[in-house]
Amino acid sequence: MLCPGLLRRLLALLWLWAGSASAGRGGRVLVMPVDGSHWLSMKLLVNELAVRGHEVVVLVPETSLLIEGSEKLPYRTETFAVPYTRAGLAQSIDWLKEGIFYKSPVLTDLSVNVQRLLNFTGTQVRGCEALLYNGPTMQQLRRRSFDLLLTDPFLPCGAIIAASLSLPAVYFLRGMPCGLDTQALQCPSPPSFVPRFQSGSTDRMNFGQRVKNLVMSVVELQLCRIMYAQFDELASRYLGQEVTYRELIGRGAIWLLRYDFTFEYPRPVMPNMVFIGGINCARAQSLPEDLEEFVEGSGEHGFVVFTLGSMVSSMPPEKAAEVFKAFSRIPQRVMWRYTGPVPDHVPENVKLMKWLPQNDLLAHPKARAFITHGGTHGIYEGICNGVPMVMLPLFGDQGDNVHRVASRGVGIVLSIYDITAETLLEALDKVINDSSYSSKMKKLSGIHNDRPIEPLDLAVYWTEFVMRHKGADHLRPAAHHLNWVQYHSLDVMGFLLVVVVTVALIIIKCCSLCLRQCCGRLRKTKVE
Amino acid sequence: MLCPGLLRRLLALLWLWAGSASAGRGGRVLVMPVDGSHWLSMKLLVNELAVRGHEVVVLVPETSLLIEGSEKLPYRTETFAVPYTRAGLAQSIDWLKEGIFYKSPVLTDLSVNVQRLLNFTGTQVRGCEALLYNGPTMQQLRRRSFDLLLTDPFLPCGAIIAASLSLPAVYFLRGMPCGLDTQALQCPSPPSFVPRFQSGSTDRMNFGQRVKNLVMSVVELQLCRIMYAQFDELASRYLGQEVTYRELIGRGAIWLLRYDFTFEYPRPVMPNMVFIGGINCARAQSLPEDLEEFVEGSGEHGFVVFTLGSMVSSMPPEKAAEVFKAFSRIPQRVMWRYTGPVPDHVPENVKLMKWLPQNDLLAHPKARAFITHGGTHGIYEGICNGVPMVMLPLFGDQGDNVHRVASRGVGIVLSIYDITAETLLEALDKVINDSSYSSKMKKLSGIHNDRPIEPLDLAVYWTEFVMRHKGADHLRPAAHHLNWVQYHSLDVMGFLLVVVVTVALIIIKCCSLCLRQCCGRLRKTKVE
Repeated sequence: MLCPGLLRRLLALLWLWAGSASAGRGGRVLVMPVDGSHWLSMKLLVNELAVRGHEVVVLVPETSLLIEGSEKLPYRTETFAVPYTRAGLAQSIDWLKEGIFYKSPVLTDLSVNVQRLLNFTGTQVRGCEALLYNGPTMQQLRRRSFDLLLTDPFLPCGAIIAASLSLPAVYFLRGMPCGLDTQALQCPSPPSFVPRFQSGSTDRMNFGQRVKNLVMSVVELQLCRIMYAQFDELASRYLGQEVTYRELIGRGAIWLLRYDFTFEYPRPVMPNMVFIGGINCARAQSLPEDLEEFVEGSGEHGFVVFTLGSMVSSMPPEKAAEVFKAFSRIPQRVMWRYTGPVPDHVPENVKLMKWLPQNDLLAHPKARAFITHGGTHGIYEGICNGVPMVMLPLFGDQGDNVHRVASRGVGIVLSIYDITAETLLEALDKVINDSSYSSKMKKLSGIHNDRPIEPLDLAVYWTEFVMRHKGADHLRPAAHHLNWVQYHSLDVMGFLLVVVVTVALIIIKCCSLCLRQCCGRLRKTKVE
Repeated sequence: MLCPGLLRRLLALLWLWAGSASAGRGGRVLVMPVDGSHWLSMKLLVNELAVRGHEVVVLVPETSLLIEGSEKLPYRTETFAVPYTRAGLAQSIDWLKEGIFYKSPVLTDLSVNVQRLLNFTGTQVRGCEALLYNGPTMQQLRRRSFDLLLTDPFLPCGAIIAASLSLPAVYFLRGMPCGLDTQALQCPSPPSFVPRFQSGSTDRMNFGQRVKNLVMSVVELQLCRIMYAQFDELASRYLGQEVTYRELIGRGAIWLLRYDFTFEYPRPVMPNMVFIGGINCARAQSLPEDLEEFVEGSGEHGFVVFTLGSMVSSMPPEKAAEVFKAFSRIPQRVMWRYTGPVPDHVPENVKLMKWLPQNDLLAHPKARAFITHGGTHGIYEGICNGVPMVMLPLFGDQGDNVHRVASRGVGIVLSIYDITAETLLEALDKVINDSSYSSKMKKLSGIHNDRPIEPLDLAVYWTEFVMRHKGADHLRPAAHHLNWVQYHSLDVMGFLLVVVVTVALIIIKCCSLCLRQCCGRLRKTKVE
């Protein structure tokens, strides 16, 4: 008999097909992705749109990490020339990862992180610029009358092209450095219960933490100015109008956000924010035969999956030695994505692989723990499949991500810079054998997977909605017409303060005048 | 061939069935409704839950306006004794409607409206109290182990019962007087672009309007204290703990809100707010034979539907005369829900009825205009079916509702107190013959009806979700642990101000000391 879960998926597909049938012809979608792990989940939406009959064109820099074209794909890729080589791109990534295994997270402070991020994005922004000023390509894009631009606003190219070609834009992202997404959405973000990036707080803060969070929210505003200065400059120069990047992305119709509230803390949101957390793990495939054999052979103890994301597949030998040592002392089998130097005696329970089907492995009933760097893709694969985690954050948003997971009691955070076999063993023992982790994770997973519509279907729906209605203006708050002072009613409060003070002064003046006159008369009467 | 719209509805039902199959047994739902028009749409959800296999018990005051029990219904009603008669209830409603046909809306000011509302709810709160203090009934309810309480928080009974029986609560409402729903939800509501109730502003305000709106938002806070004082007192007394009604309803798991952003202005929302605007008009039935014949006979001119809601079906003869006069001069046929005195010469194109299938009529392709009092049910039936409106607001939230509709250019507002045949004629002529109204309405209707899941299915889904997970804690913001000062970070800002001032004073003091010492030495040197 068809299981209800599968039936629901089937019905969802039929539902979307019915929607498509009523929506008429397929649309023309221009996609400006961000390379690297950002692409991995956006690709799912891009693919689905193409399968649904839309003409999808993906713009790819000729030097790319993960975006590949192929005749077999339902969407088309079109490459554009960029002024950097593969080595240059690799170098910018290496900067981002520099020292992550050796420095305490405290030492790699905010300014270093910002500088690294600027270096990293700087390379790609130059690529973006090359595309924008490539006259013939842009002319050709203009002529092709796209209906929509789908982009990740982490890089400025997409939003600038959308503005230049007057296309409605749909954004696909996890979030933006320094909270620019929240600002651009005009979404309130009270620092009293919305922890700021890298604040180390949860949504429940004591007074000291709230002070820190408020200060950081002011710092964030300034930080945004620095971080997006090159985006502002490029947008203004190319579009020939004074515009900040924040204003530019504020024009977006729908924001498809790769999180939900099993991961993020509940907070105010805006009507054009659509939550598609877990979009990357909805469809688990069965394992290849050799892997299936390996995990089935793990017996009652099950197995552990270990990856550090798409950008880090190795580690220094002395760190790796500690990890191997820990693994040699657990009864579970381990599958580890590792391309570093292999020592002589790899423990028998460990299988090293250049790449592994992470989500499919985590979906296996024998998966007991997931050692991850804490990228959102991995975290959601853990949550979807209900596997508790040991987390080793490396850079970027990973520190914040793992903090969220740990605060729910479904994972343990370790520092990669001072990891030892003992700390790793202890953490693994806890998440595997302390039932509180697995039971809390099962509950969280149940909540995450219990949703009226699957994330991928929801993403497709709203993308098509924007094409059908040429935007989503009815979800756009009037706050976009206000500046910061007006938004927070500071001008109104100032005005009311002036009125109150003036009235108070007039009353005091009148009273004192009256009093003086009365006293004067009284004195006069007495004298007479 | 099956049309895609119908197919989607069919698939949605199958989808929900699949969800239900995976959810296991049906739950036990206790329903504490609010009588009158509030019940009309809640009934749809109650019915659907019962049809879906849940055991649904609706508590009904023995003196009720619209809530009726019947063996044919899939849900069960259980009546409770109340200390007022039908006449008493009718009287409280009459107070609410007093003078609506004769006084200018400006004259029926805020305080009068508040007093009327307090009178109206007062009667029903006494009924609620009778239930709460009915020991045997409450004991019996406690024994029956319900899984969920579904209520409209417009009246306090449901939330108090939920707290008393420790049941998770789902709320079903349009909104609450003085914005208590927004406050209880801890939802930011910036007065710079979220117009307050009865402010007469849209979401785009000039400076003066923003001043008024900020003042009104402060007034609202005070107003809430007055309006809900009796709710606070009852809740605290019954539950034996100091609790405000705002805090009490703040514990609700999911808020099913009968609006969306084709009607309301886009504004910040919270993750546990679910928008089900249009729940009352998704399923249009075919018309009875006599009505079908009447509307079909209207030819190319089509017909007009006129109702003033479930509570007002008559009007003073001189007003009715003006309306009849206007109708006699239009080429459209008119269907009017009217139970007042009938004049001798009713125009031939007018059909008077005690009750009419409003939504089914509006769904007819020959419907040209809808004359309505501006209740949200009627407004959504107009929007769903794409029929432009002439609106005659009477009381309550209707003034605000019609303002929203008019601001979108899909309807015209008239005052019932000074209506004439000419003004009505002019308005009807505009909405019927000026194509801007019908084209804007068609567009709005298209957007409203374009949604990934039907409102009724969404309401069922989230109600079942709360039963499956015994609440929706993951959507509950930590803001519930903060008081007003903390929420707005006023304590933190005060602290930072003190720190800054202290540091500044110390620096000034040090500088002046240094300066004095230096000057002293200089003088000394000169003297020597």
